[in-house]
Amino acid sequence: MAGKKVAAGIDIGGTNSVFGLVDREGNILAGGSVKTAHYPDAEEFTKVVYNEVIKALDSLGGKAELAGFGIGAPMGNINRGTIEYPAGLPWKGITPLADFFRKYTSLPIIVTNDANAAAVGEMIYGAAKGMKDFVVLTLGTGLGSGFVVNGRLVYGNDGFAGELGHTTIKPGYSDRECGCGKKGCTETYVSATGLKRTLLKVMANTLQPSRLRRYSFEELDAKIIYEAALEGDPLALKAFEYTGMMLGIKLADVVAHTSPEAIFLFGGLANAKEFIFEPARKYMEENLLSIYRGKVKLLPSGLEEKNAAVLGASSLVWSELENK
Amino acid sequence: MAGKKVAAGIDIGGTNSVFGLVDREGNILAGGSVKTAHYPDAEEFTKVVYNEVIKALDSLGGKAELAGFGIGAPMGNINRGTIEYPAGLPWKGITPLADFFRKYTSLPIIVTNDANAAAVGEMIYGAAKGMKDFVVLTLGTGLGSGFVVNGRLVYGNDGFAGELGHTTIKPGYSDRECGCGKKGCTETYVSATGLKRTLLKVMANTLQPSRLRRYSFEELDAKIIYEAALEGDPLALKAFEYTGMMLGIKLADVVAHTSPEAIFLFGGLANAKEFIFEPARKYMEENLLSIYRGKVKLLPSGLEEKNAAVLGASSLVWSELENK
Repeated sequence: MAGKKVAAGIDIGGTNSVFGLVDREGNILAGGSVKTAHYPDAEEFTKVVYNEVIKALDSLGGKAELAGFGIGAPMGNINRGTIEYPAGLPWKGITPLADFFRKYTSLPIIVTNDANAAAVGEMIYGAAKGMKDFVVLTLGTGLGSGFVVNGRLVYGNDGFAGELGHTTIKPGYSDRECGCGKKGCTETYVSATGLKRTLLKVMANTLQPSRLRRYSFEELDAKIIYEAALEGDPLALKAFEYTGMMLGIKLADVVAHTSPEAIFLFGGLANAKEFIFEPARKYMEENLLSIYRGKVKLLPSGLEEKNAAVLGASSLVWSELENK
Repeated sequence: MAGKKVAAGIDIGGTNSVFGLVDREGNILAGGSVKTAHYPDAEEFTKVVYNEVIKALDSLGGKAELAGFGIGAPMGNINRGTIEYPAGLPWKGITPLADFFRKYTSLPIIVTNDANAAAVGEMIYGAAKGMKDFVVLTLGTGLGSGFVVNGRLVYGNDGFAGELGHTTIKPGYSDRECGCGKKGCTETYVSATGLKRTLLKVMANTLQPSRLRRYSFEELDAKIIYEAALEGDPLALKAFEYTGMMLGIKLADVVAHTSPEAIFLFGGLANAKEFIFEPARKYMEENLLSIYRGKVKLLPSGLEEKNAAVLGASSLVWSELENK
């Protein structure tokens, strides 16, 4: 019975939700995933995820004991245990996710922004170890962000701090619709989806041949465009350059707010390595006030992509237990 | 001899530097000012300010004893006691201000960003009492900002956090030169000087009569434009509306970073009250992600304008002494 304590870390994404059973040292002992998009009903989703977690726990054959659930999700609110008006998830309005989980368990349930969870994972187990001021950007279907200031995660007054995806890079100058209802949000440029949208514009403007012209918008993803860029495809290269420029411009703004030691990128788009890092660095430096230039490190996450958010989410459970 | 302890709070501005001798309860017992612009040599400036402080101390007739110097200045760096590449001050490059003061005294000398000092003043003595997450914007010759997160001032990794004035509202879309060497910085729109620049553009575009056409650029200031707005001058009203719009757009960005409970405005431009607050509120709300709407208070400073920075700067001395 009294096995090793593990926390369930759950990372809810627009397409997939990934979970892991994590011990205090950051070892993921078991895990799995659930297709978020298949569940328009969040209560049904909760039931499936809960059952999958219990199945994974059983697979450890009594060697582990569950300590709680840490959940990272877009628009996750730590104060209320809710997910509120998420862009890119199938659930509209306010979803009382912690309440849904409480139907099955009396263990602690902590919900926060997925990027905040990733930032905690980076701080405890990843490349941000020992840093007191840094920012994590998650470049997936959308653009998430987590800020750490003075060694602590920034939640802000309402528990929603760190929504860089929905700042506007050039107010009034963009017609790109965002899932949030606004236009020209940074996320519409700087995300795997933003890269696709930019590629289509490049494709519309130029007559250069490219094998990417064979793919539909739905078929395209950051990986396909990255592979084309590796082959020297001019359209893919242009799309990355533009995406990196928009990211760099935004990063200069971020630095002027909290002056971090480092900014970590991860997620689908960050995997494109120098195709995204190089223009991002260049345009960040160009747009920085001189006092900040050459000081801020732009780095890949020190954690395996799928693990960062899971580790971060799970670590919330330990901190909850310690504060009791 | 052993009088009441007072801290010298010094607020260095582009035009004037104001100082006060402040007791622990926030009472300013004596004070004065020095014309910053008259001293192209920062060592000479230091000598004059130091002598003025001692003169003010003597005027108290032995009832007060000096505990240290707290200094707020544009680009003031708390880590190094320097002022580095300030836009709008007569000193170029890096000025080792704390070292200059140490020639005259062995008391503690703390240098920080003027807006950071104002934020501390607001937190301890002003309208931000009891708040843990808020932002202060100083709208004077330039645009300064101080962030408080989890009840602590954000200095960032290099001690320079909070330079909203040098973020760019519409990258690539503005030719307005900034004192920092970049173009289109928020400060070139949102500051007393920015208001003047906008007024000139309005004046150039429209043929409407206005008594403001009688003033030269050098003669104009935020107060003159405010008085014209009170009389219903259409050019002044347009200039305020546009300035407030640019401020509001930027504030929406600020909220997405740190999700503050309130944002405080003070300085020359903030004195124009609803001419600046009303459009700023409107465009902030319009540009906010829905989860933030209607939550963030936009408020005037709770301190007398000239006192906020002086009180904040002085309070740095007490915190320095307590940490010893």
